[in-house]
Amino acid sequence: MFEYTERTKQLQEKLLRFMDDYIYPNEKVFKEQHAALDDPWDNPPILEELKTKAKEQGLWNLFLPDSEYGAGLSNFEYAPLCEIMGRSSIAPEVFNCAAPDTGNMEILARYGTEEQKERWLKPLLAGEIRSCFGMTEPEVASSDATNIQTSIRREGDEYVINGRKWWSSGAMDKRCKLAIVMGKTDPNAELHKQQSQILVPLDTPGVTIERHLKVFGYDHAPHGHAEVTYDNVRVPVTNVLLGEGRGFEIAQGRLGPGRIHHCMRLIGVAERALEAACERVSERVAFGKPLAAQGAVRQDLARSRIEIEQARLLTLKAAYMMDTVGNKVARREIAMIKVVAPNMACNVIDRAIQVHGALGVCQDSFLAAAYAKARTLRLADGPDEVHRETIAKLELKPYRRDK
Amino acid sequence: MFEYTERTKQLQEKLLRFMDDYIYPNEKVFKEQHAALDDPWDNPPILEELKTKAKEQGLWNLFLPDSEYGAGLSNFEYAPLCEIMGRSSIAPEVFNCAAPDTGNMEILARYGTEEQKERWLKPLLAGEIRSCFGMTEPEVASSDATNIQTSIRREGDEYVINGRKWWSSGAMDKRCKLAIVMGKTDPNAELHKQQSQILVPLDTPGVTIERHLKVFGYDHAPHGHAEVTYDNVRVPVTNVLLGEGRGFEIAQGRLGPGRIHHCMRLIGVAERALEAACERVSERVAFGKPLAAQGAVRQDLARSRIEIEQARLLTLKAAYMMDTVGNKVARREIAMIKVVAPNMACNVIDRAIQVHGALGVCQDSFLAAAYAKARTLRLADGPDEVHRETIAKLELKPYRRDK
Amino acid sequence: MFEYTERTKQLQEKLLRFMDDYIYPNEKVFKEQHAALDDPWDNPPILEELKTKAKEQGLWNLFLPDSEYGAGLSNFEYAPLCEIMGRSSIAPEVFNCAAPDTGNMEILARYGTEEQKERWLKPLLAGEIRSCFGMTEPEVASSDATNIQTSIRREGDEYVINGRKWWSSGAMDKRCKLAIVMGKTDPNAELHKQQSQILVPLDTPGVTIERHLKVFGYDHAPHGHAEVTYDNVRVPVTNVLLGEGRGFEIAQGRLGPGRIHHCMRLIGVAERALEAACERVSERVAFGKPLAAQGAVRQDLARSRIEIEQARLLTLKAAYMMDTVGNKVARREIAMIKVVAPNMACNVIDRAIQVHGALGVCQDSFLAAAYAKARTLRLADGPDEVHRETIAKLELKPYRRDK
Amino acid sequence: MFEYTERTKQLQEKLLRFMDDYIYPNEKVFKEQHAALDDPWDNPPILEELKTKAKEQGLWNLFLPDSEYGAGLSNFEYAPLCEIMGRSSIAPEVFNCAAPDTGNMEILARYGTEEQKERWLKPLLAGEIRSCFGMTEPEVASSDATNIQTSIRREGDEYVINGRKWWSSGAMDKRCKLAIVMGKTDPNAELHKQQSQILVPLDTPGVTIERHLKVFGYDHAPHGHAEVTYDNVRVPVTNVLLGEGRGFEIAQGRLGPGRIHHCMRLIGVAERALEAACERVSERVAFGKPLAAQGAVRQDLARSRIEIEQARLLTLKAAYMMDTVGNKVARREIAMIKVVAPNMACNVIDRAIQVHGALGVCQDSFLAAAYAKARTLRLADGPDEVHRETIAKLELKPYRRDK
Repeated sequence: MFEYTERTKQLQEKLLRFMDDYIYPNEKVFKEQHAALDDPWDNPPILEELKTKAKEQGLWNLFLPDSEYGAGLSNFEYAPLCEIMGRSSIAPEVFNCAAPDTGNMEILARYGTEEQKERWLKPLLAGEIRSCFGMTEPEVASSDATNIQTSIRREGDEYVINGRKWWSSGAMDKRCKLAIVMGKTDPNAELHKQQSQILVPLDTPGVTIERHLKVFGYDHAPHGHAEVTYDNVRVPVTNVLLGEGRGFEIAQGRLGPGRIHHCMRLIGVAERALEAACERVSERVAFGKPLAAQGAVRQDLARSRIEIEQARLLTLKAAYMMDTVGNKVARREIAMIKVVAPNMACNVIDRAIQVHGALGVCQDSFLAAAYAKARTLRLADGPDEVHRETIAKLELKPYRRDK
Repeated sequence: MFEYTERTKQLQEKLLRFMDDYIYPNEKVFKEQHAALDDPWDNPPILEELKTKAKEQGLWNLFLPDSEYGAGLSNFEYAPLCEIMGRSSIAPEVFNCAAPDTGNMEILARYGTEEQKERWLKPLLAGEIRSCFGMTEPEVASSDATNIQTSIRREGDEYVINGRKWWSSGAMDKRCKLAIVMGKTDPNAELHKQQSQILVPLDTPGVTIERHLKVFGYDHAPHGHAEVTYDNVRVPVTNVLLGEGRGFEIAQGRLGPGRIHHCMRLIGVAERALEAACERVSERVAFGKPLAAQGAVRQDLARSRIEIEQARLLTLKAAYMMDTVGNKVARREIAMIKVVAPNMACNVIDRAIQVHGALGVCQDSFLAAAYAKARTLRLADGPDEVHRETIAKLELKPYRRDK
Repeated sequence: MFEYTERTKQLQEKLLRFMDDYIYPNEKVFKEQHAALDDPWDNPPILEELKTKAKEQGLWNLFLPDSEYGAGLSNFEYAPLCEIMGRSSIAPEVFNCAAPDTGNMEILARYGTEEQKERWLKPLLAGEIRSCFGMTEPEVASSDATNIQTSIRREGDEYVINGRKWWSSGAMDKRCKLAIVMGKTDPNAELHKQQSQILVPLDTPGVTIERHLKVFGYDHAPHGHAEVTYDNVRVPVTNVLLGEGRGFEIAQGRLGPGRIHHCMRLIGVAERALEAACERVSERVAFGKPLAAQGAVRQDLARSRIEIEQARLLTLKAAYMMDTVGNKVARREIAMIKVVAPNMACNVIDRAIQVHGALGVCQDSFLAAAYAKARTLRLADGPDEVHRETIAKLELKPYRRDK
Repeated sequence: MFEYTERTKQLQEKLLRFMDDYIYPNEKVFKEQHAALDDPWDNPPILEELKTKAKEQGLWNLFLPDSEYGAGLSNFEYAPLCEIMGRSSIAPEVFNCAAPDTGNMEILARYGTEEQKERWLKPLLAGEIRSCFGMTEPEVASSDATNIQTSIRREGDEYVINGRKWWSSGAMDKRCKLAIVMGKTDPNAELHKQQSQILVPLDTPGVTIERHLKVFGYDHAPHGHAEVTYDNVRVPVTNVLLGEGRGFEIAQGRLGPGRIHHCMRLIGVAERALEAACERVSERVAFGKPLAAQGAVRQDLARSRIEIEQARLLTLKAAYMMDTVGNKVARREIAMIKVVAPNMACNVIDRAIQVHGALGVCQDSFLAAAYAKARTLRLADGPDEVHRETIAKLELKPYRRDK
């Protein structure tokens, strides 16, 4: 109880050393190399160097529970590792554990045909290409997946795709080669059988990257969130995933684990923010004493510690339940961490900003950028309110009068 | 991980059945019998009946980790059981697991001489008498234990005790026979060696129960919190616990487990408050639909569920650490749950009151009384601010410049 | 702007002196006299003495805007005076400005016939009798007034009343002689024309005070909240107020000013709680320095000051609008202060309790009792959620698509 | 009471019309013109066009209480106008009411010599040049002004300035010609007499704009926040403001009004965010109904309305007190709004973001940028904690034991 497995402990140790040896010292290098590039959507060379190192050390594809293709770790085993990666914005990709590729690789590993795996899963697992996920549309509320308007119409041996997606994260990256697109193959089928997911090579004629979307002023280059139009895009029928009408089913399977990774990483970044706050208040002097000697500051540090601990425990429990009783039974716990983790991270980072003063909001610290990301995750997979609604529904079920 | 032990599961099942069969149905009986008594500090007869039943079923002294005298459960094993008892205000005593007797029994079991055990521990374990703990004094801030003013002066083979204590919980009860009193035997010794703890039979000449203290209007009869004066009270030197100057040491050992029990019980009462809220909103209609259909109500139910889950996990972790690495190493976790559990309970109960309307604040529901208790526990073992201070101190330790 | 009128300033000064000279010193006297009474629903003699003094000084019926019967002050002029009275639980009645009599006197002054005024308004204005208001019923959600079930059926020259009311505040008081009862004269009329209000002398056969309701353990004696049954209670038809079917209309007119008084008083009690907190932290020492030197304590004092100031300004603005544009146009502001004032008071008092430690929750301070009252006022005139709903409705009106 | 003056009402009307006619429709134009510029620190031509129009309509320099140079409005009169300007990020400059010029113009108008006025105040009042204020330094906590390290050493008829400033807002703008720099002329004088303020033309040799600082990823071009070094910068002795050693005194006078303008503008932007939220929830449909029909959303709209109203009233009161009793007596109220306004704005904007979903965090809405600014204002003039400390100090003063 409250102990990690041996495997996790060994990987934790290795990972922590790697962070110290290669990740933290190279955050600045990454930044400088990126600043020197002509095209912000190119990648700094340091990234590939680090990926090679991570691969050599066996710190690669740890996210994938499938032991044929990945590390074969359970969610509970992976959680503390994912948390560590979350401490640095450059780390997840170094270990080939970055969103949205992780979710896409899981889908391909679980539902892909041999041919699909050969063509897309292999290079993704090798870290040679990247991918995006085309789900959210600007015109409709995406917290309700049945709203989707993109059409996927069959014509002979091809599907013809028409629609507009935005927040296709990663699509700006020059190495992004594949989009998994969700759309409607049959608008007349029953509500959850209308959607399909389909593989669309990004170089297919008719696919246009319209622009990139900023998050609180950040372009998140070289990753980037794109608005993408699909104008009579044609792909072979074999590109459909799992079969027509099964898009919703795939989405459900994808979102559970995909999103718990976000929660884990948020815990990591919150830890780092708290450390930065402790560091700062211990050295910064105002009104004759270090900030660390001020009661109000100390109370806030304690609040952050308490919130982090509680969020971590709840995330671990959700991971454990996903492993043992499955995503469906664990949906209450998944909904809870989706509310808890980003809110906790926003609070903890905001307090860290506060003790950093103006330094905390500018480019000289990681805090403001981390806040912007955490804030966005209160929306990215449906707003807090929708998850609380899910929890309330489950809570009230035993009391329903009409049952 | 996140699983209770077999022993806990079996006792949980038994306990839950006992609650359903005997505790809940008799809460009203207890109230009515108590209302009919001439003296509010007498006990309703139903209590002894229930105690006999609990003893028969082996649901007795579960709190005591010492397996010679009690159940021999670890904190982690006891936590989920204590939580269940916390659901009813009459339950803890029925199972002989009520404060402050539990803490006093632990002290006696651990530090008592054979004679002390024979005279006091045995009847306490048998549920024949009750006891109180005389620590807090009205004149000084008790969050800082070095402030204590009560004097314990040796004269020959006796100690002479002089002082004024308040919030001696349980001292109003007619069956209360023993006070464990904390005072200073040597005001000139070093700071944490000045205090001693001593056994004082409540019928010793010079001991006067001055009055009872109410909590938010509640007298908590027949238990009750007393203000007690000690006026030249003489007890034999053999009544000292562990030895002169070791009072602080005993207090430290007592407070850890004693207080985690409060946290566990608070989780139980919060669960019951949430259940009451769900029940209420499912049946109460306003503006044409059940309260359960209102979004604001549902969001609040979800908030309560989230807070309870997180508090429970943190409490379990603290219990686990107390068992495995000891109270000292676990002091960060203990401090955290002392902040988290009562605040969580206040929030959850307050939300339950809100959906009950005026019913929630009066004697027809358990909610207002439960709130008053939970609120008091934000102070009873030092205020939130002191615990957060402890947490901050530990958090900042690695960053200290003067280390 | 932000200045009180001359009249208010003069009365403020007078009132403050009266508080210092007569109210604060007699709070303890009131308590002791009350404790010495045989019947808790009798009144301590000090009360009549103080009322005589207040009358002599012209500090009497200040609440009544009608200048024929009362002081003729506007809401804006009365607000700062009512705030002062709110500082002591015994003050409002001393100045004949206590709920629910104030609301009842307003109704009688505005809607009563000459005969009704002669019989009831006169002795109420003279402080000779007291009254209660029978609205809330235990079986239905009273936040929705159309739910009321009590029936008022005409039979010849009489109305026959049947129903059960609770939370009839003041009905326990021996001097309470009159109930204004709300019930349905015509359940088939349109929704807001079904109700009537009727005068019921409390000694009418069929009226039974069933029991008193406690608020968080307080019985609020000698005032007290009663559950009252009406069993075939017969009163002459002339006892109806304003006319059959106009009960809802009267209620609307009553609640606006009636409730703003609560808000004003809450500001007063919050001020006193903040003063008590400042006093306490300035004298109490812990860990080697006064609590006032601790940063966390100081931040909380500032929070309280900020919340009080904002609540006061909003209440004054609502009062000003009620005076200038009327209750209907001011309903947004009225709804806002109903949310703001009790929540502010709960927060401020809770923080004051926190720095008082255990003293703050017991009978030795006014804080816990004040908290219980403030908490109840988050429900007494409909829960926070209902007022926020009103505000949202008004806010969204200009954006409605169906307009 | 609670009424604006006639003059304010007239200007309000005029200003609102100007906003509708010229500001809102040109926000997009400004953006597009700016995007098309080669240098982001140049200004879009639309700006000068709008300034001309504003000047023609007499909506110019409204901020300046001095009626010789400006509109001669009191703070209380200006507040509601400044609020309106705060609704658009391009508006303040259009009306020549943008920070930090407003504060600099006030200093020059109040303390400047005729020569200083001629050279700097005149073109500033005419909107021909812009200015910056060099106060904050990267190395020391600027919430404590005595920490400043920049040296201003006299050598003959010149002062020699050496130091490093950052967050010199506006210094990136090509039209910025003047820095008012705060530094120490005499480090051995008494604490508040060490500092002086001095006029430094930005083209003086030795002044280097090192780089610009981003706020949550935004560069705030063409305004921009600069890090500026002063390396043996020489200016004539006549450039000192008011006299040697009087820098602290000037700063005190500057910060009061300067910062209350921020508060006013924050109220304006919060209003606009609430309007955007209402608009959005009225049109956006999820789960079969508009967001406006969801209880949780409606509660949040009400919360925002309540917070805005309270912040506005407190700001108006502070303005009124500054006008009537002066900045020193009003320092409690000034401290209060510095806490209240930015926190309120953060909350209101954050809730607006939440109902906008991903749209709310990207460049397609003004919300994320507005949040970043509001968040920064929780730090810009000292953190919340410092203002609360000021309030607590004043609150506790009457209770001090050592007085």
